Amino acid sequence: MHSLIVALGERSYPIYIGCDLFNQANLYLPHIRGQQVCIVTNETIAPLYLQQMKHHLQNFSVSVVILPDGEAHKNLTTLNTIFTNLLSEKHKRTTTLIALGGGVVGDMTGFAAACYQRGVNFIQMPTTLLSMVDSSVGGKTGVNHAMGKNMIGAFYQPQVVIADIAMLRSLPKREISAGLAEVIKYGLICDYDFFVWLEQNIEKLMDGDLEALSYAVLRSCENKAKVVAQDEHEEGLRAILNLGHTFGHAIETAQGYGNWLHGEAVAAGIVMAVDLSMRRGDIAADDFKRVVNLLKKAALPIKAPEDMTPEQFVALMGVDKKVLDGRLRLVLLEAMGKAIVTSDIDVDLLMQTFSACR
Amino acid sequence: MHSLIVALGERSYPIYIGCDLFNQANLYLPHIRGQQVCIVTNETIAPLYLQQMKHHLQNFSVSVVILPDGEAHKNLTTLNTIFTNLLSEKHKRTTTLIALGGGVVGDMTGFAAACYQRGVNFIQMPTTLLSMVDSSVGGKTGVNHAMGKNMIGAFYQPQVVIADIAMLRSLPKREISAGLAEVIKYGLICDYDFFVWLEQNIEKLMDGDLEALSYAVLRSCENKAKVVAQDEHEEGLRAILNLGHTFGHAIETAQGYGNWLHGEAVAAGIVMAVDLSMRRGDIAADDFKRVVNLLKKAALPIKAPEDMTPEQFVALMGVDKKVLDGRLRLVLLEAMGKAIVTSDIDVDLLMQTFSACR
Repeated sequence: MHSLIVALGERSYPIYIGCDLFNQANLYLPHIRGQQVCIVTNETIAPLYLQQMKHHLQNFSVSVVILPDGEAHKNLTTLNTIFTNLLSEKHKRTTTLIALGGGVVGDMTGFAAACYQRGVNFIQMPTTLLSMVDSSVGGKTGVNHAMGKNMIGAFYQPQVVIADIAMLRSLPKREISAGLAEVIKYGLICDYDFFVWLEQNIEKLMDGDLEALSYAVLRSCENKAKVVAQDEHEEGLRAILNLGHTFGHAIETAQGYGNWLHGEAVAAGIVMAVDLSMRRGDIAADDFKRVVNLLKKAALPIKAPEDMTPEQFVALMGVDKKVLDGRLRLVLLEAMGKAIVTSDIDVDLLMQTFSACR
Repeated sequence: MHSLIVALGERSYPIYIGCDLFNQANLYLPHIRGQQVCIVTNETIAPLYLQQMKHHLQNFSVSVVILPDGEAHKNLTTLNTIFTNLLSEKHKRTTTLIALGGGVVGDMTGFAAACYQRGVNFIQMPTTLLSMVDSSVGGKTGVNHAMGKNMIGAFYQPQVVIADIAMLRSLPKREISAGLAEVIKYGLICDYDFFVWLEQNIEKLMDGDLEALSYAVLRSCENKAKVVAQDEHEEGLRAILNLGHTFGHAIETAQGYGNWLHGEAVAAGIVMAVDLSMRRGDIAADDFKRVVNLLKKAALPIKAPEDMTPEQFVALMGVDKKVLDGRLRLVLLEAMGKAIVTSDIDVDLLMQTFSACR
């Protein structure tokens, strides 16, 4: 088992990574504060793990909320069903919520924990690769609004994150790929050695090798934890974690939430960001090809949908929350393994990228 | 003009109290971060102050949300109309929300500010006595759920609070009374000298004497700020601010939000808490009478609705968020001007209080 600490002063918490941790209740029971627990999961995960989870919690008073699966349900209406369960089961301020699921379940459960009685404890048990390496770490919680993704939320940290790599065995291949988009991102923004390791081990990862997956999750979480510890509320540095995301959000919005997986949209977005970095002269054409090749080997899209026009991209990126004071800010690479955030964007080059990447 | 600081480290902020501060824009313009402002107000306040407010903000890009008036609309659905306005007007993370209204507007605007893009700045401009002395200070924000009052929210501090006492001139008498319930509460829980001052000045306050009202608001805010500075997230001491509120919430819930004003329910709740304190032997019968007399002179209810049974009270208090670990915790007085929080409640005495106070 690997472990690390997200260092955030009194809000610090451990992440445990390894196989079958789900059944090692001693890892998470100490983080349950009172006698009450609410497990929030979804229709897909419940049949796989819910009974077992309840078995481990038999000494607690447990209620269960089963959400519909998918990004389309990540909204205030679904969030309210969690509050309704908590209130009808008389959960108190000492209760603990457990997010058992992927990013949507984690984001909503974390936000529900942030808001219920103005804040209760919660535990992240991510069940997808994407949520293990990204959304379960760092405290970004929230829901979507019809007019924008993740526009309503809170920075709110869990008590502990349990990443049970064995759960990835039952994860569809497409979702392994989606998770790898964020994994590859860490290599690109701040860890070139890891990028090289990924090039060497991508086949193992795609084959579901649990040891390789464990290492990839560990290294991803370490990178993310380092960034978050320096800038919890995204006032500066943390924005580098959004490499490919501004483009990716535009794709997701244009296609309707849930048609492209988040990681797929991020993969296409990464290609666009690296393409633009190349046009600016910061990335060599060969390195651009390495990025495209690695994403291809991870079975990820490397282009935006053909029907998306440059105008549509600009319009959709205008409302994105990474835009500050009316200027478009983008995360780009100034070298392999080194991201920058810049609002010094040459519109012509950006348009070339839009044309080239679809 | 009076002023004070709510001392919360990097979240500290000033409160300005005085006449016509609304028109002294130099007090609040420095607290607007970017070029965008969203004024959130309600149907009742908008005709009185909105044009003037917009005039002071003519150098900013301003959008306006006018909420329906009343506690019945303090819910997630109404909250979402604020998010929709912010998104359709393309408000960025640097925007500033201004809450221009009473407690409902302040609580919802503050919560919207806490959640929009995971947190933007906001300014409190309370227009009622109740919100000046209570809800605008201390960072409790949120909305109601059909199953419980203030069950969904956040601790989130404003940048500045502007309490323009001149606004109280247009406030209905009934709402002055409702505000005085919280004012009297401060005397009872932690400031006996203030309680005596209130006994001596209650007629002036009821006559709308602005100097007396300014002093009452100042002294109330000072007391609240002192408590909040010691316990921002209500892990202990802050609970004393809830004197009368557990009983009061039960009354509000039983009667339906909005039929009793919050301050009216708190007044009846204060009588019940002091009655129970008397039965426990901590408060003299004469002092109990002084409390009842002062509330009477403030034209406030001194009894719960006749049709509320003790059983109804218990049931309604069970879901209250001040209940920790299954035990009923109440704020009581151990002396005039000194509150305690206790879960050592004699059920027989409590039942006597229920019977005596309706």
